[in-house]
Amino acid sequence: MDSLAPWKILSTRTVYSAPPWIEVSLQKLELPCGKIVGDYHQVATPEYTLIFAETEDSRVLLIRQYKHGMREVAWTFPAGLMEPGEEPLASAQRELLEETGCHSPEWISLGSSVPNANYGCGKAHFFHAKNCKQVASPNAGDLEEMEIVSVSKNELRRMLLDGEFKISGMIAIAALVLLRESAA
Amino acid sequence: MDSLAPWKILSTRTVYSAPPWIEVSLQKLELPCGKIVGDYHQVATPEYTLIFAETEDSRVLLIRQYKHGMREVAWTFPAGLMEPGEEPLASAQRELLEETGCHSPEWISLGSSVPNANYGCGKAHFFHAKNCKQVASPNAGDLEEMEIVSVSKNELRRMLLDGEFKISGMIAIAALVLLRESAA
Repeated sequence: MDSLAPWKILSTRTVYSAPPWIEVSLQKLELPCGKIVGDYHQVATPEYTLIFAETEDSRVLLIRQYKHGMREVAWTFPAGLMEPGEEPLASAQRELLEETGCHSPEWISLGSSVPNANYGCGKAHFFHAKNCKQVASPNAGDLEEMEIVSVSKNELRRMLLDGEFKISGMIAIAALVLLRESAA
Repeated sequence: MDSLAPWKILSTRTVYSAPPWIEVSLQKLELPCGKIVGDYHQVATPEYTLIFAETEDSRVLLIRQYKHGMREVAWTFPAGLMEPGEEPLASAQRELLEETGCHSPEWISLGSSVPNANYGCGKAHFFHAKNCKQVASPNAGDLEEMEIVSVSKNELRRMLLDGEFKISGMIAIAALVLLRESAA
């Protein structure tokens, strides 16, 4: 297992920084075999939450929104960046309320994941919010023009298997919940 | 649907560039509502392939490897960056051979996804390679110390549902294949 030991960070130099959005750094690393890598990038972006929100009648809340990184309108789940000092669960509860006006009495953590295992790029925290109930009007931020749609789990499964979802974290959480329930 | 129209790019300025690894740019955008956003980042990293490689006896090839972006040893699938001008399928076939020494006669595209819908960060192309057969020794690049392990699909499902996988794209492709087969 020695060869799988962590790489040693010899130095870190920030090459681009625009807080709180992104910081790019360049690291000098020593690998377990002794090899020196002089220019390995790390990209830090804010952590975020992604929420599989299910209503009392077992429908799943989807958001349809233009996503500029994809240059297209895409399906996603309620999601948002964590604020400094915020815990994942509190952040997910705030985002669900802001984006959909919903409250959930039952939150299940589905773990967390990184979008890019080499660079980092902002950890995602996955939650399944059950028995969601509308308690307010949606009140998202300025950039977030969106449509909220609810679908049955059968329809969600069809959309997923037909390739209609094109964001890695979203595919991950949707497939994970559906798989978990099919295994139960 | 008007409010879901694409954002107009008024200008793009590269703020950090280290080809072929990463380019960060800052865009001035006009939203459908007329609002101007002066400093929206885009992060371009190479596209890559991720392969669900299944042997003739239905075992799935996993790779255990230190991933520096996570600072830990993680499970992943055979994967790798696409070379300039390379097609996704050809890239996936090359990576599978390099990393595992395996050849597959049967490749199924499972679509593609982006790790970060706002910034971009390198599209992933997912493939299911069936009936993989060992035809050579693994011959990965210098940085890639790894162990190759094969597991049954039941074991893969257990690992997935127990949260042992921590890379978004990897969770996505694994859950997608298992869900597809449970739906078949």
